[in-house]
Order: sequence, then C-alpha cells, then structure tokens
Amino acid sequence: MKPLDQGSIIPLYYQVKERLDARIKAGDWKPGDKIDSENQLMTVFNVSRNTAKKAIEEMVQEGTLYRIQGKGTFVAHPKFEQSLGGFYSFSQVLKEKGFKPSDIVLKVEEVVPSAAVQAGLQLQTDETVIMMKRIRCADGEPIILESSYMPKSIVMNKDDLQQVGGTSLYDLLAAKYGVTVVRAKEAFEPVLIREHESIHLKTEVGKPALLLERTAYDTNDTPVEFCISIVRGDRCRFYTDLV
Amino acid sequence: MKPLDQGSIIPLYYQVKERLDARIKAGDWKPGDKIDSENQLMTVFNVSRNTAKKAIEEMVQEGTLYRIQGKGTFVAHPKFEQSLGGFYSFSQVLKEKGFKPSDIVLKVEEVVPSAAVQAGLQLQTDETVIMMKRIRCADGEPIILESSYMPKSIVMNKDDLQQVGGTSLYDLLAAKYGVTVVRAKEAFEPVLIREHESIHLKTEVGKPALLLERTAYDTNDTPVEFCISIVRGDRCRFYTDLV
Repeated sequence: MKPLDQGSIIPLYYQVKERLDARIKAGDWKPGDKIDSENQLMTVFNVSRNTAKKAIEEMVQEGTLYRIQGKGTFVAHPKFEQSLGGFYSFSQVLKEKGFKPSDIVLKVEEVVPSAAVQAGLQLQTDETVIMMKRIRCADGEPIILESSYMPKSIVMNKDDLQQVGGTSLYDLLAAKYGVTVVRAKEAFEPVLIREHESIHLKTEVGKPALLLERTAYDTNDTPVEFCISIVRGDRCRFYTDLV
Repeated sequence: MKPLDQGSIIPLYYQVKERLDARIKAGDWKPGDKIDSENQLMTVFNVSRNTAKKAIEEMVQEGTLYRIQGKGTFVAHPKFEQSLGGFYSFSQVLKEKGFKPSDIVLKVEEVVPSAAVQAGLQLQTDETVIMMKRIRCADGEPIILESSYMPKSIVMNKDDLQQVGGTSLYDLLAAKYGVTVVRAKEAFEPVLIREHESIHLKTEVGKPALLLERTAYDTNDTPVEFCISIVRGDRCRFYTDLV
C-alpha cells in the first residue's frame, strides 16, 4: 500500500477516506462487507486514532459505510435514486434499475380519515375511506412504509386491493375501475423513524427518514389517492432538475 | 367547552387533537405559546392520561406542537414551504412570503475540494476552490446552514463574497462577474443534525434535517456553484408537482 502524502495540503483523514472509497469502488469491499477496524486503519495508514475515526465518521455520515454496535463498520448498499422530475411509480422505478419490486400488504380497511386525508381527497365530513397499508420492498428489502387512502366512490370493494401485492396500485385502479392517474402533488420533509415503523422497515428508531405526502389525480383532476409514506433515508435519495 | 362525542366512531384522542388544532387555527394559541398541560387536558376534556398524551404526541409528530423538556408543550411556527417546481433563490422565496432574509457569513476561504465538490464543479484534480459558509435566516431565525463552493476561475477575489450578507449570491455573481445562473440540479436526503450544525442552527443534535446538494449552471451549462445545505426539518417543508 502506497503511504499517505504527509506533506500534502490535503488532510490525512481525507486521504484515508479517498483510499477507502477507492477500495470500495474497485470492489475489494462489497456492500455488506466488514471493513478494517480503527486499529487496523491506524496500522495500515500509519495515522492516529483521531484520523482513522474522522475518516470513518465522514463516510458513515455520507452513507458509504454503516456501523453495527459491537460488530464493526460495513459497506452500505448504494441508495436508490429517485427523480422527482416526473410522475413515477415506485415499482416501475425499481424495475428500470433491475430490482424486483414486491409489496407486503399489512391491512386493507375502512377508516375515518384524518383532517389531512380529508383535505387531500377533498371529502365531505363523515365520509369514511379505504386505507391500504403496505411495505414496499426492493429485492425483498423493506424500503418504504406506505398508507394509501382512497375514496369509497372509487374503491367500491376493498377486497379488490388484496390483489395489489404483485402489481402497481395505479395499474389496478386502471384495470378494475377505469381510473387513470395522470398527475400528483408531493410534499416531503425529514423525520425520524418511530417504533412501529422501525419494525416494518427493519431499521432502527431515530434513524432519518423522509415523510412523503402524495395526492394523485385522475383525468378529471379529481383526487383519487392520498398517500403517506415513510421512506428509509439510508436507502433512498431524491433528485430534481430546476429550470 | 362542548364535551367530546363519546359515542362517535372517531377516537377520543383524535377529537382532542381536532379541538386543539381548531384553537390554534382560531388564534387562541399563537406560535410560541404554551398550551395546556396533559393534566389540564385530562380535566378540560374529561379523558384519560393516555388519550391526552396520544393527542399531543401526534401533534408533535405532525409539527404543530413542540416540547421543551421540563417546560411544557408549545405551538410551533408554521413551516416555510418551498416549491421544487422551478429554480429558486432562498432569499427570494422568503421575501415573497413576507419574511426578511438575512445571512451570517461564517467564513470565506480557499479550500481543497472534496471528491463530491470536484465532481459537481467538473474540476481538474489539484484545483482549489472558494468556499463560503453562511447561515441563512428568516426574520433573524437560522433556517439553513449552507456551504457554497465556486471555482476560482469565476470568483477571482474571495473578498468580493464578503458583501453577500445583504444580497443574493446569484445577484452578486451576475453583478460582479457577469455570470447568470439559469438552472440547477438538486439531490436531497434526510439526515440528523450534528453538533456543529446544531450550534449554528440553534436547534438540537439528532433532530431531522434535509441534506441538500445543489449544482448551479450558467448560460454555457458550466457548473458555477456546488452547494451543500443542511435545512432544518422542523422549519421547512418542500413540495413539487409531478406530471
């Protein structure tokens, strides 16, 4: 291993980081692999503990590495990149990237909508709605916990939704009810994973997540779905073009 | 106060929440005001501690209320809403909403760019860049901690940037250097506030935030700024239209 450049204006921790990044890019360490410990890095690069620690910390913060308490530091899986440039379906995005989408339907039931759902779906008060809660997975890994709310005027029989597991909800709405979703409005903000979410998403309480609220409209500009999603921040990244 | 509807299918905690929301909307409680304690809510609405607690917890999660350990529960300030529908300047967005934008410039210096900055600005290796770190405020409240990186081929004298405090960076780039920013690319993901960020943003370590990476391009499609922002999640919300 070529020694670090001690005389460079580039800080040593940063040089360590670049070497580690290069090894990950080269495939020496693959997603899920354990990397060298702090002690090993100190020996390999001949640096202080603080330098080794800082390199690892930055890479954890950047999402390249993750730590498991008492076990070590591991290479993270690359994040799913999601463009906000156009209307999208999660299952479609995954397929395009070569992942197998799957859903675990947790429940389908008739519920009293919250004020947010009522406003999103432009409902009269007292009207109940159909709620479908599901875990959206990529290659079997849980990524998003999603609750979709739909008016009963559209989803006339909630049992129809049980079939959504294999297909896209929007495909099902089109096939079953002749409803075509043509546009959506989304709002998002960062939140922390809560306990029941951590269980479904197989992640830890307090980890960063994106709370996403989507309202989907049909060809008559009628809201047909209001959806609240918790998206794992360690697995997803969104991007957009602004002109 | 009208009693809750004990026979309704709408859960009691939800009814409490609706009453509290209504009082906030009516202006009985203003942003920063302390609301009734759990004990007071139990008496006022004749509900159990669990019911009062659940109503408050949901409102804290939704961002309507916030807690200060040992002091009580308070009404939150409404979040800044930021459309991702088009290219924007933070100072301009604030002005449109009637807030006074201001910046605290923390430092302007020549630095060795990280790999991300290098890639964003399409730089040759070894090229240093000008970095400006500032706190962006709305009516004096810190909202965003922002580090802008610009090539030295554009910002020829870093002292020019000291004047940015009162004006927009893009206005300054146009006025000083004839550089017009016409489009930008943004990527964002949820993160947790770290210690040095918490100090500048006057918020707590571990609170949710949005990490935003922006590359801004001029009329020749040359990247002129790469910017990394930490946006307070308790103060901002983003939205977009998808078609």
